[in-house]
Amino acid sequence: MGKFIYQELSDRFEEMIVQGTLKTGDRLPSVRSLSKEEEISISSVYQAYIDLESKGLIEARPKSGYYVKFSPRQMHRITSVNPSKPDRAQKATSLAEEVYTNLKKENLVMLSVNKPDAAVLPVAKLKNSLLQVIRKDPEELLDYNSIYGNESLRRQIARISFSAGITVKSEEIITTSGCLEAIHFALLTVTQPGDKIALESPTYFGLFKAIETAGRIPVEIHSDPLTGIELEALEEAIEEGVKACIVISSFSNPLGASLPDDKRKALVELVTRKNIYLVEDDIYGELYFGNARQKACKAYDTKGHVILCSSFSKSVAPGYRVGWVIPGRYYGEVLNLKMSHSVSTSSLTEIAMAHFLENGRYDLHMRNLRKVLHLQSLQYLQAIHRHFPEDIKVSQPHGGFVVWVELPKGRNTEELYRKALERGISIAPGQLFSQKADLNNYFRLSFGKPFTNEIDMALKVLGELMAE
Amino acid sequence: MGKFIYQELSDRFEEMIVQGTLKTGDRLPSVRSLSKEEEISISSVYQAYIDLESKGLIEARPKSGYYVKFSPRQMHRITSVNPSKPDRAQKATSLAEEVYTNLKKENLVMLSVNKPDAAVLPVAKLKNSLLQVIRKDPEELLDYNSIYGNESLRRQIARISFSAGITVKSEEIITTSGCLEAIHFALLTVTQPGDKIALESPTYFGLFKAIETAGRIPVEIHSDPLTGIELEALEEAIEEGVKACIVISSFSNPLGASLPDDKRKALVELVTRKNIYLVEDDIYGELYFGNARQKACKAYDTKGHVILCSSFSKSVAPGYRVGWVIPGRYYGEVLNLKMSHSVSTSSLTEIAMAHFLENGRYDLHMRNLRKVLHLQSLQYLQAIHRHFPEDIKVSQPHGGFVVWVELPKGRNTEELYRKALERGISIAPGQLFSQKADLNNYFRLSFGKPFTNEIDMALKVLGELMAE
Repeated sequence: MGKFIYQELSDRFEEMIVQGTLKTGDRLPSVRSLSKEEEISISSVYQAYIDLESKGLIEARPKSGYYVKFSPRQMHRITSVNPSKPDRAQKATSLAEEVYTNLKKENLVMLSVNKPDAAVLPVAKLKNSLLQVIRKDPEELLDYNSIYGNESLRRQIARISFSAGITVKSEEIITTSGCLEAIHFALLTVTQPGDKIALESPTYFGLFKAIETAGRIPVEIHSDPLTGIELEALEEAIEEGVKACIVISSFSNPLGASLPDDKRKALVELVTRKNIYLVEDDIYGELYFGNARQKACKAYDTKGHVILCSSFSKSVAPGYRVGWVIPGRYYGEVLNLKMSHSVSTSSLTEIAMAHFLENGRYDLHMRNLRKVLHLQSLQYLQAIHRHFPEDIKVSQPHGGFVVWVELPKGRNTEELYRKALERGISIAPGQLFSQKADLNNYFRLSFGKPFTNEIDMALKVLGELMAE
Repeated sequence: MGKFIYQELSDRFEEMIVQGTLKTGDRLPSVRSLSKEEEISISSVYQAYIDLESKGLIEARPKSGYYVKFSPRQMHRITSVNPSKPDRAQKATSLAEEVYTNLKKENLVMLSVNKPDAAVLPVAKLKNSLLQVIRKDPEELLDYNSIYGNESLRRQIARISFSAGITVKSEEIITTSGCLEAIHFALLTVTQPGDKIALESPTYFGLFKAIETAGRIPVEIHSDPLTGIELEALEEAIEEGVKACIVISSFSNPLGASLPDDKRKALVELVTRKNIYLVEDDIYGELYFGNARQKACKAYDTKGHVILCSSFSKSVAPGYRVGWVIPGRYYGEVLNLKMSHSVSTSSLTEIAMAHFLENGRYDLHMRNLRKVLHLQSLQYLQAIHRHFPEDIKVSQPHGGFVVWVELPKGRNTEELYRKALERGISIAPGQLFSQKADLNNYFRLSFGKPFTNEIDMALKVLGELMAE
């Protein structure tokens, strides 16, 4: 899809601001002069400036023009940590349990939960879809779902997969109870108990649990904060016996890294050449702030070495547990696992979700959600800029919900976590995300909740605690 | 709960008819004389006769009185088969796949599916509950469910567990995606890969799959058609290394057997003494035709050796996938598995189900469902009596949905299955239910669908095919 002229202009200015080429207080060219210079209409320039203003990047000063309001500090590239330290699995597990348990406390400002807030979800429209399907055929909602998953829903998933570069028929898709179940089935299919599974370091702590409860062994691979898993390190691990690799290909958790296109291609070539399997977790793929979706790794898969897993939990309804898997040549095995595990998925949630997707509501919602999350990310980053000490580094998210924060070496975010909790604020300490790397001086913040005074105050408190 | 006087009377007559003490054509005492004789009111006798008439057991002849309309043939006790033959696992699996695939054919008379028909489910009332919860708090429905499962629902499950003799708090219950997921978690918790798991023979084919995909080994134990698993055979198997035992304690599938109370107690004592675990599948426990629910095995468990698994799939809404597990001392392990497997279950279906249970709708529905299924069982049995050849034996269900049918030795129900399919009728051939026992001359019929002319015709066709 082509960009509007104003968008192109807005993007160029945003980049200059984010890169630090334009700094806080710098004056932007006048609307008239820019219009002449770029040979575009005055209204396009206005639209671009309004767009930048809505993102909090510039401000209009009466009778004076537009000025840069925010430039993130010259970003020191966030540091990555090699996963080579002694095993701290026990530590990570007990900390995860503590964090989970504490989530039950009331009146917490939740900066730790990696999910979209209800305020940014299509509550009213999904309610509408629900009401319509309930009225249409209440019997169907009660009956066992098809083993494969609801047919209309699978057709819709096939449709939206196209934008990720994946051409797939509904018969090649199996629905699951969320993305994690899809990953679970993929793992059980392509590996044996005792097998080693490579995954990014740091990564979502649920993946460690999934691997371990399946009797497999997680192997952490050094990952770049911007471009994700390091292929050389992965190749070495494969040579040392790794049998499969799980990668969150876009806007990874907690780094926010995305594999560049050529790295995706190289990764698929690597697993194909080594005759192992890539389990691609694409759950954040649709949540890009840029202009287009990146192709999934699965799009580069010609020999059937990639199993794609995803869900609507991060974009439409976490509580619906509607996920899916595109298992390729392992279709029969995954179907067999699903049947033997829980017979089938829920009819009600899948029928409602199919209706939501069929009526163009999903596409409209996603366009809006991307804008809203982009705006929230900028609002949070600006507040972080205001409140956090100078020596704190933060990631620059291009999609998803999370910011990865780095404190100077030697600082302890587990302590910060406990102190913040006392002040009614929940963050996710870095140690959760690795069993091998020392992430004591990192933590993860989520910007899934709309930015409010309360959030601003919470970030201020965090800043004060870090300054102590 | 005490029975009404008319019920006691009706039950006594039903027993005499079923036992063959009263035979087809026998005249029942006049209402007036019976009222005198039993010292009960005339209206109670009338109610009893109306009850028997509604079950198709007696009929009123004008100006003459009530006559026995149906007496099941003097039931030859259905024969059990020892699971000692060479392994036919491959055969059972491929046959199961064939049966599943064929279910997709249109216009089949489904006598093979072990589920209640939508016609006997609370479609309108559940729709009502859904609409109410959607209007009340549409945001909650979208959000991640609690890891433990919806709190209101767990309180309701605790409440209904009481009638099974189980005193349990909501905090001791974890919800699952159906009963099979609960069993899966239980198995993974109490056993290791490679462990042997005892189960009834014959039993639900999904259990074999669940055991095998978990890397455990199924061991079939000879089971009595009426009283379920043989404890002596089980004890031997435990001595030979079995580490856990799965039992469908009430109205088992496909036998329809229920463990008598003393056998339940003895079974729990056995597993406790041997220090192994019982996974109790109680999914049909509430579907009794008699006057009260039997206590679950879990009710006799004082040392924490029984994990109870159940769901609402066979009583309220198969497609909702709302199940639960009471894991006792393994609470933490099961919770961990649930989290690492699919994070949590669906909020929407659990909140709707909780609402349905909170408002007394469930209890009312279950009272009605039991009556309806009882009536259907009698209608099916009468049709079987009319249409099946004399040498066919059938089980006498006291709950649930299924009749187990035995043909003379040497007959082949796989062939019958294929011939029936050609005539548009689906049955479940016996071979599905065992990997070791020769069940070629058995098949399973479900009476989950209301009895209609179409069903009557289908049973007639089956009878003709068997007579060939």
